Amino acid sequence: MSRKEFRTLAAPDEVRAAIDGLELGGGTETVDLRGARGRVLAERVDAAVDVPGFDRASMDGYAVRARDTFGAGEAAPERLALAGTVHAGEAPEVAVDPGECVEISTGAVLPEGADAVVVVERTEAVDDGAAIEIRDAVAPGDSVMTAGADIAAGTRALGAGRRLTPREIGLLSALGVDEVPVRAAPKVGIVSTGEELVRPGEDLDSSRGEIYDVNSNTIAAGIEAAGGEPVVYPHAGDDYEELDDLLRQAADECELVVSSGSTSASAVDVIYEVIEDRGELLLHGVSVKPGKPMLVGRLDRADGGQSAYIGLPGYPVSALTIFRMFVAPAIREAAGRPAPPTATLNGEMAVEARSETGRLRLLAVGVADAGDRRLVYPVDKGSGATTSLVDADGVVPIDPDTDYLAAGEAVTVRLFSASVQPPTLLGIGEDDPAVDRLLDRLDSPRYLPYGSRAGLARLRDGLPDFAVVAGPNGEDTDAVSIARWHREWGLVVPAGNPDEVSGLADLVDRDLRFVNRGTASGLRTSLSNAVAALADDRGVSRHDLVESIAGFESAVGAVETPARRVGDGRADAGVGLRSTADRLGLGFVPLGDQPVELLGNPDRLERSAVDDLRAAAAELPAICESIPGYQCRGE
Amino acid sequence: MSRKEFRTLAAPDEVRAAIDGLELGGGTETVDLRGARGRVLAERVDAAVDVPGFDRASMDGYAVRARDTFGAGEAAPERLALAGTVHAGEAPEVAVDPGECVEISTGAVLPEGADAVVVVERTEAVDDGAAIEIRDAVAPGDSVMTAGADIAAGTRALGAGRRLTPREIGLLSALGVDEVPVRAAPKVGIVSTGEELVRPGEDLDSSRGEIYDVNSNTIAAGIEAAGGEPVVYPHAGDDYEELDDLLRQAADECELVVSSGSTSASAVDVIYEVIEDRGELLLHGVSVKPGKPMLVGRLDRADGGQSAYIGLPGYPVSALTIFRMFVAPAIREAAGRPAPPTATLNGEMAVEARSETGRLRLLAVGVADAGDRRLVYPVDKGSGATTSLVDADGVVPIDPDTDYLAAGEAVTVRLFSASVQPPTLLGIGEDDPAVDRLLDRLDSPRYLPYGSRAGLARLRDGLPDFAVVAGPNGEDTDAVSIARWHREWGLVVPAGNPDEVSGLADLVDRDLRFVNRGTASGLRTSLSNAVAALADDRGVSRHDLVESIAGFESAVGAVETPARRVGDGRADAGVGLRSTADRLGLGFVPLGDQPVELLGNPDRLERSAVDDLRAAAAELPAICESIPGYQCRGE
Repeated sequence: MSRKEFRTLAAPDEVRAAIDGLELGGGTETVDLRGARGRVLAERVDAAVDVPGFDRASMDGYAVRARDTFGAGEAAPERLALAGTVHAGEAPEVAVDPGECVEISTGAVLPEGADAVVVVERTEAVDDGAAIEIRDAVAPGDSVMTAGADIAAGTRALGAGRRLTPREIGLLSALGVDEVPVRAAPKVGIVSTGEELVRPGEDLDSSRGEIYDVNSNTIAAGIEAAGGEPVVYPHAGDDYEELDDLLRQAADECELVVSSGSTSASAVDVIYEVIEDRGELLLHGVSVKPGKPMLVGRLDRADGGQSAYIGLPGYPVSALTIFRMFVAPAIREAAGRPAPPTATLNGEMAVEARSETGRLRLLAVGVADAGDRRLVYPVDKGSGATTSLVDADGVVPIDPDTDYLAAGEAVTVRLFSASVQPPTLLGIGEDDPAVDRLLDRLDSPRYLPYGSRAGLARLRDGLPDFAVVAGPNGEDTDAVSIARWHREWGLVVPAGNPDEVSGLADLVDRDLRFVNRGTASGLRTSLSNAVAALADDRGVSRHDLVESIAGFESAVGAVETPARRVGDGRADAGVGLRSTADRLGLGFVPLGDQPVELLGNPDRLERSAVDDLRAAAAELPAICESIPGYQCRGE
Repeated sequence: MSRKEFRTLAAPDEVRAAIDGLELGGGTETVDLRGARGRVLAERVDAAVDVPGFDRASMDGYAVRARDTFGAGEAAPERLALAGTVHAGEAPEVAVDPGECVEISTGAVLPEGADAVVVVERTEAVDDGAAIEIRDAVAPGDSVMTAGADIAAGTRALGAGRRLTPREIGLLSALGVDEVPVRAAPKVGIVSTGEELVRPGEDLDSSRGEIYDVNSNTIAAGIEAAGGEPVVYPHAGDDYEELDDLLRQAADECELVVSSGSTSASAVDVIYEVIEDRGELLLHGVSVKPGKPMLVGRLDRADGGQSAYIGLPGYPVSALTIFRMFVAPAIREAAGRPAPPTATLNGEMAVEARSETGRLRLLAVGVADAGDRRLVYPVDKGSGATTSLVDADGVVPIDPDTDYLAAGEAVTVRLFSASVQPPTLLGIGEDDPAVDRLLDRLDSPRYLPYGSRAGLARLRDGLPDFAVVAGPNGEDTDAVSIARWHREWGLVVPAGNPDEVSGLADLVDRDLRFVNRGTASGLRTSLSNAVAALADDRGVSRHDLVESIAGFESAVGAVETPARRVGDGRADAGVGLRSTADRLGLGFVPLGDQPVELLGNPDRLERSAVDDLRAAAAELPAICESIPGYQCRGE
């Protein structure tokens, strides 16, 4: 197995400098004003016309020669002959001669001779409408906007670099502009490499190790958000020719090509080789974790020029982290977009965290709102976990010399974006369908289904607002019970129960493939208790019994996983809930009811989000009613 | 002239309640994941598959039975027979029997029999590659991600109401989702009324009082930003039948119809009438300035239902203010979009401001950064001015009982949006082409070309960072001169100078139509001085001379306006610059050179934006070089 070692990792500033040296576009394109929202003006726009284009009445009333109204007032109205009428959108057909007035609508052209408007409220029609009494003296220009007074032709209206919001679009409309020169969106090609990748929506063959391609869509969305135009190319495997063809096509068509590498060393080697053969490699490896296997370079184009190239790591969290840190700012710069407001948040570590020294660590973290302070906790389900994408709110940068953050230590979280709102409510605990429905009734909660044991432990640390604990928890906590219900659990078996499983003894005594849940799960606890009881009955050790159940020590996924393995034919029985068996159309052998308790963090009871939780919990009887095997009864 | 009086204006809360009672949509539509960025999930999404779908190597190395490595270490490597290889994206062809290992790539399927991976760095191939020395003891599960460990099938993945950013798009991709149910964008029809409206890009007949339609594009952009789908209908005049047809069509096709009224009372009356005949009017008039003539109601649809209707005022600033305050929040709510972070800024009034009592006033203001504090100044060029759209940064709400804000009074500015960045640099003063080019070299400056006199006055108030003063200013200030140049001014005449104008005396002695600039302009000051000198020469009063110049007291637009009037044939001569005459291909009769001075606010010299201004000003010699009649010489 050959592999390229990244012996000298570049510092982040070196990476930024290398990327700054690339050409990412920065051209101009002309777009319809209607589609220009969010774009950035490429050139200064001067007014080509006067706005308004004529002396314009700004009130309804009568156009007059101001001189004719001098001395007029309530007590001594001035009488002027009505010479005609002019409405908005029509050319005046009459002029205003001395002693005359013309009825005028807001927005209409001031007739020749007139230099002011008397508002209708200060007038009265007399002589059957042939004349108007003017009860106010006006000065030239009163209630008139002269031509060009808003903005005159030739005036600088908007500078290059101005971001077009509804307000700028309004001013450009007033100037009659319907097409605007804007900074062109840099075209960014995305080439995801890996033989195992399948596009979302297509069929997946897990036995071949296929997985859905996460990076193409994620990075495409990130490119769009930064003001670029993503172009997604087909997947490439680790084959030199294939990758070479794809990267050259992308380089010809785009200003920047971003690959998100297969994380296996062999694929990295192939990319590395193509870039060296077909362009130049400026930099490989950055001393940031996650994200070490980053590449920066150029790719030759058929036209003799070069396009920029950046290689991202393959794991989605790593790829997006590196993209945000290095690539998005470069795309924004090329698109002329202003840097988004930096969003940081101060908090304290809820638990300790360790880091390797020697590289800048960007620790993905979630944030819990503890009322007067924010608690920060690492979110790390291991390399390649995609759930970390949504369970984290930002990163805590840990400098290369620091290897340890203590619980309680003050840290600054770099939020993923200014629009990230840490969840209003954090729960940790058992995976349970009633909890899922409870969450549906709350506004952006976060629930980490790490199991009952983890829920209790984190609640003891003071991290979540609530924990969900299933089964006998055997612990005294000062947590407050917010709700309690029962769920029927047992063995999920194939539909019709072909093996005629009748209870736990069948698992022990017969050669059945069993699937268990992890030790943090309340289902596992209840099952272990039942095994212990059976061992007592039989007068044997619990260990002997467990040894004879094939798969007892396995620990899989979530509440439905054992049942789904049964449904797939990969197991003969699995621990699970009646509700799961019913939902998946499988058989069920009941072993008991277990309590599920929603425990509130005693320090958070005053939070309004916890009030919302209590209010939603009041609906649990109705929720339990609708789930087979669930009962929401009082203690 | 009939007019509907709004005798009882609704309070803002009543308007909100009326709009809350309307149905603005809230349906669901399915979109491709690729186009889903920014949308809001309409339904909860549960994982349909395990991620990963198989037990997956998370490192490059060798798949082993962990038990076979117990006791292995650097000093005592364990030797295992190499049974084969498995790469990412392929099904394992071999199993791992006791005493064996299989070479495995990151992401590949763990072969049957194996329960852990030893990373390649802790191994060495021996026996010509037939066997592998393992130098590390591993536990079951080491360097393996088990099926469903990231997220297991059946688990709640994302809740309804979640906004889709690149991160959520990543998780959905991992789940194989390529279409997502999102909140439908409410369709919002826009009907702008007014006989005088012309679409931007079309020809304008100013003699008929035509103006470009500002509101359709502005409100459409605002609707998009709020998450709605704008539908722009043709303009309607004040004709009942035409308006009736349009509003009914819009009601049939949209959930909400927004009209932006012609501001003339007659058009309001027609709309009012149509709504009363074809639906119901819930509310007319809101006690907010600007924005009194607002309507809220419902329009009957052909299908028997009703669509919501909101009538906005006609003036663009008023329309956008009322849209932002009442309509955008309702569209966001219907689209499931989170309310944007409220952005406010504390400052103090730089000048006093007066307000009528009885209505909530939303005073459009600009903000100047004075280093340690923010100065707030009203931006009001009169009703209907569209430049106020971009010259303001937000509004100061003034409650109905307050009629006066003193200079220095603390106020809170509601910024138009969280992304509004008040300008880094504020200048006020003479309209001058060299200044325009200077501004092009700065990052988002704001320059208000209100004339030399206004620049000096505001600089005395301490408002701007700099002022630009042309002509003899005759005042002592403690301002700091940042730059000084000279421009040649005189009379702009038609090309070829057909009237053979040779100087100021021709204006006095002959019957020529002249166009002047406003009294705040430095051009006007120099011209007045020249007139005074001529009067002295002739031994007559300045007044007599001025009286004999037709148009001397007129005051128009900006620096190019008099010249453009000459170009249009509407005048025989105008005061102006040689550079303008050259640019517009007109004739020029020089009357002199005038100094132009860029004066810095002495309290702001430490600001980095002022440093940038000085740096840009260093380029003035080059700028002046390129403008006819300009000279940048030292004092």
